[in-house]
Amino acid sequence: MEAIKNFFKQDKFAEHVGIELLDVSEGCARAALDIKPHHLNAVGIVHGAAIFSLADLVFAMASNSHGTVAVAVNANISFMKATSSGRLTAEATEVSRNAKLASYTIRITDEQGQLIALFQGMVYRKKDKIV
Amino acid sequence: MEAIKNFFKQDKFAEHVGIELLDVSEGCARAALDIKPHHLNAVGIVHGAAIFSLADLVFAMASNSHGTVAVAVNANISFMKATSSGRLTAEATEVSRNAKLASYTIRITDEQGQLIALFQGMVYRKKDKIV
Amino acid sequence: MEAIKNFFKQDKFAEHVGIELLDVSEGCARAALDIKPHHLNAVGIVHGAAIFSLADLVFAMASNSHGTVAVAVNANISFMKATSSGRLTAEATEVSRNAKLASYTIRITDEQGQLIALFQGMVYRKKDKIV
Amino acid sequence: MEAIKNFFKQDKFAEHVGIELLDVSEGCARAALDIKPHHLNAVGIVHGAAIFSLADLVFAMASNSHGTVAVAVNANISFMKATSSGRLTAEATEVSRNAKLASYTIRITDEQGQLIALFQGMVYRKKDKIV
Repeated sequence: MEAIKNFFKQDKFAEHVGIELLDVSEGCARAALDIKPHHLNAVGIVHGAAIFSLADLVFAMASNSHGTVAVAVNANISFMKATSSGRLTAEATEVSRNAKLASYTIRITDEQGQLIALFQGMVYRKKDKIV
Repeated sequence: MEAIKNFFKQDKFAEHVGIELLDVSEGCARAALDIKPHHLNAVGIVHGAAIFSLADLVFAMASNSHGTVAVAVNANISFMKATSSGRLTAEATEVSRNAKLASYTIRITDEQGQLIALFQGMVYRKKDKIV
Repeated sequence: MEAIKNFFKQDKFAEHVGIELLDVSEGCARAALDIKPHHLNAVGIVHGAAIFSLADLVFAMASNSHGTVAVAVNANISFMKATSSGRLTAEATEVSRNAKLASYTIRITDEQGQLIALFQGMVYRKKDKIV
Repeated sequence: MEAIKNFFKQDKFAEHVGIELLDVSEGCARAALDIKPHHLNAVGIVHGAAIFSLADLVFAMASNSHGTVAVAVNANISFMKATSSGRLTAEATEVSRNAKLASYTIRITDEQGQLIALFQGMVYRKKDKIV
């Protein structure tokens, strides 16, 4: 798992956005984002794409945690609550997996544990080893 | 429309990602992203969240183009083709709109016009004026 | 809640498909479908639309359980596992709700408790009372 | 294509719902539904699941039109406009396709050509031949 975590430290976009990897285990992952001015949209609330970026990283970590490359094919995100400061946490859970496809639910919550967004994602699983 | 375009120049996250606003008209919008190293993921291809960010900006511009605030409530994205360099363009089209809700399709294409991703998004329309 | 349950007995399409209402409480609902030949598709497995129909009913029941009319605006369904016989159960849980919008997760499982499909749905909440 | 069309005449669920196959060609398909009382929900409008069923059939026909079995893995539907009578038509267009995955957009319209719902679906493509 340390290898998977190190692998994702090469994710340039997640780094650029300012996402902090917390932990990863088989089918699960967690990450956090401390909200900064560059995460806001034109009306001053956290950008949907910043929330998506946070969710997408744990989706990638959880789906690649089995050691073979998984590529996202579909993602659906529902936005529940607007926020403009503090720390967001995303947690991915594997809901199904076969040889070719796997599916994950990601909950994005604020510091009070309130649901900010809900993300459902599907990956196609390749045969290539990650590390 | 110039006012709408200026309003979206305050979108800090889009600016941080490096998205270039092209044009906006009633229910439509276009933007582009020149792929740089910070848009790549751990396997060296353009990050799904970078593509989502590009799509999300034109979604926001198109849905706010009628002059009242529209907030994203749901987005679905399907990823068709991996890419790692060049310029991506996103174009939003309004597919439906009533007083409360509106729906948009966004096509993200590469320089050859090939479809990279397809995004379907829904907004809730508030009464507040934008500008 | 008995009134809500009776109200949904007027759902002609659910009746036509053969869905059995089990129970409904604030924000939650359960229903079941005994798989019959008319639920199968051309390859002899349960039709995705039959599974969607089952999920959609508990989505409607859960979202209307607060006593005011809620109309579906978006639904996303991921299909995890094919099946061709037995009994399917769908269970809806409310994941968020404000005055205008609410969101639900529906799990569709087989008799062994295995996940057949996962459904994420959003409603627009009207002011009209149901009963 | 006649073989594909005949194959889908074995779709028991589509027949039970009352869907009429119109035509199918490489990557495209059309079908219609004459609204009857059994397509209505508890508030007397066409059931979302009946609309999904119509969309799902053209999705299946279009994705299986290349002669190999394609199974639905994800579908997203947005409901634009309520209706309670007349004839609905669904039309599927292929938006992308590789050896493993393909993606389709389905428009469901009423007799006036107004958009009732928009459906985005993804299939996993098997090697098995259909006919």
